[in-house]
Amino acid sequence: MNRNHVKLTPLVESLPATIPFVGPEALERMRGNQPFDLRMGANESAFGVSPLAAEAMRKAIERSAWYGDPEGYELREAVAALHGVSMDEVCLAGGIDELLGLTVRMFVEPGEPVVTSLGAYPTFNYHVEGYGAALHRVPYRDDHIDLQALTETAHQLQAKLVFLANPDNPMGTWHDADAVQTFIQALPPCTTLILDEAYIEFAPSSTHIPIDPNQPQVIRMRTFSKAHGMAGMRIGYAIAHRDLIVGYNKIRNHFGLTRVSLTGALASLQDTDFITHVASQVDIGRREYYALAEHLGLASIPSATNFVAIDLGENGDRARAALKALEGHGVFVRMPGVAPMDRCIRVTVGLPEERARFAEVFATVLKTL
Amino acid sequence: MNRNHVKLTPLVESLPATIPFVGPEALERMRGNQPFDLRMGANESAFGVSPLAAEAMRKAIERSAWYGDPEGYELREAVAALHGVSMDEVCLAGGIDELLGLTVRMFVEPGEPVVTSLGAYPTFNYHVEGYGAALHRVPYRDDHIDLQALTETAHQLQAKLVFLANPDNPMGTWHDADAVQTFIQALPPCTTLILDEAYIEFAPSSTHIPIDPNQPQVIRMRTFSKAHGMAGMRIGYAIAHRDLIVGYNKIRNHFGLTRVSLTGALASLQDTDFITHVASQVDIGRREYYALAEHLGLASIPSATNFVAIDLGENGDRARAALKALEGHGVFVRMPGVAPMDRCIRVTVGLPEERARFAEVFATVLKTL
Repeated sequence: MNRNHVKLTPLVESLPATIPFVGPEALERMRGNQPFDLRMGANESAFGVSPLAAEAMRKAIERSAWYGDPEGYELREAVAALHGVSMDEVCLAGGIDELLGLTVRMFVEPGEPVVTSLGAYPTFNYHVEGYGAALHRVPYRDDHIDLQALTETAHQLQAKLVFLANPDNPMGTWHDADAVQTFIQALPPCTTLILDEAYIEFAPSSTHIPIDPNQPQVIRMRTFSKAHGMAGMRIGYAIAHRDLIVGYNKIRNHFGLTRVSLTGALASLQDTDFITHVASQVDIGRREYYALAEHLGLASIPSATNFVAIDLGENGDRARAALKALEGHGVFVRMPGVAPMDRCIRVTVGLPEERARFAEVFATVLKTL
Repeated sequence: MNRNHVKLTPLVESLPATIPFVGPEALERMRGNQPFDLRMGANESAFGVSPLAAEAMRKAIERSAWYGDPEGYELREAVAALHGVSMDEVCLAGGIDELLGLTVRMFVEPGEPVVTSLGAYPTFNYHVEGYGAALHRVPYRDDHIDLQALTETAHQLQAKLVFLANPDNPMGTWHDADAVQTFIQALPPCTTLILDEAYIEFAPSSTHIPIDPNQPQVIRMRTFSKAHGMAGMRIGYAIAHRDLIVGYNKIRNHFGLTRVSLTGALASLQDTDFITHVASQVDIGRREYYALAEHLGLASIPSATNFVAIDLGENGDRARAALKALEGHGVFVRMPGVAPMDRCIRVTVGLPEERARFAEVFATVLKTL
């Protein structure tokens, strides 16, 4: 190609052609189009979507020729009521992934410092790098996000943004509300905290921090992808100070959400019994995974999410080998990307029969390592 | 709010809090939550979605807990086959709106020149301004995009991007393939053309330019929002040189599309009979609108889209009054934003019974102006 005359921005040219995750479908294609028997690698909900939401979505398809409401009025109203905030303190978007991109764009100029944890959510890093900001990664401590180190680094660098997932992905660990509140108080004035609570519905109540959009330094992010079982519908929201919501509205793709997703999310919010049910099923599944690990002579990491990290010991090689072997048996799981967490594999809680099947395959695989 | 310590980027702070379009739902809320009887203002397809696509989407809802394939492999494969290009020359996104944002981000740094037409698609302008580029607007000539003026301005400014919708929105006019090819040849080497073909399925075949991704200066954009009747599902694609697709892949939201939209678009592409049917129904509807206008002593603008601009004469005041009066009668239409096109209202082709109702209301309204 004669590209002398068609130039992308230097920033985009400079970006690597890497992507945050290779999807399970791509892995299936690499396996010669063999679908996985067990899809336990993306923390998708095995318990599906609320029947109310499914019905609402099926009905919404009749009107799929119409754009969704760009203001997402009804859903923002419901979200606001749920959390006791104002509609003007809520921004909808295509899941936390999209919110992260918008947030980076809103706060950070090229070269400015941003802090996250080494091994934390790759899609945040993708957006930080995509906007040319300077990403600093703080190591985990004992499989937990190291709040103190995050604070110190934020101060040192005078960071514009800090990312914290609580509960955490990929380890499933969490910090109690008190610890996070102390952390927030200790942030430098120049820093805004992205508090990613994708897994909050699975966490003990001691993890829940009151939502206060008047606290201008904190952006809370929630999603319908996990407990609500709507990962495939791409919808989530941020709660933040209304001035920040004005900022999102200046740059977001106003007609970006599908009509079906908006409708489904609204219905799912009403079905609180379903979410309670999913959370309790996930808790049963986690305990099963802990017991399975113990039975197999392995440690597991207590989790406040819908997945469990199982510790295969030694260094990452053993977990990588297990991942590969599991894949060979038709089981899709993932693992943390960096040491020392990469001694673990990360397994999403499946349905009871899926967990039984996983237990069987995993025991077989372990013998071959 | 004490915002001394939480600062957005100067660019985002400087952006106005305006949005490209106020949606019909917001207008309904302003009317005291009275739904419109006729929704003919957003060029949504009155003919809905293909029954095959609707069925595929209903079925896909069963798996809405699973993320869609971030590579959109099957849909890209089908798009590539349809247009005789390679999969690596196709980028999927949440409609042309999202593609426009990605394209601006990919090509333009703050202050760099971009050219469009005065009165053309506002969402493109929104993204250009959102990334801080310098937007230059070239007036229409005789209700058509002025290709020669676009070329001249692109040369003068050494523009990075030029935007051309063919057929055009909001006027519905079009340029034949030959004219557009000549225009492309005449662009300066530094300029990339965004060729927005959202309405191409409604256009005469003389409008269709061969798709050649080896022509690195042209990005073709297509959508499922119009003829495919899937505006509410937010899905479209760009066809471009593979190096540009690599660029999109460096910055796009990889898990951004819903599983249901991907599935529906794939099914809709198969249902070519349906699209042919929709296009022929739209043609009948356009002719009805031309005849209606003539019957009412008004001119109309021949259209290659699913809407017709009806000329109310004089200046924009008369069209604005008509818009207002129509809204009072429960009819949602839009109108071009700038003179001299703002002498028109823009009416989407409805179903036969909707067109009959529109004819009735419009005749009534005209008497009151």
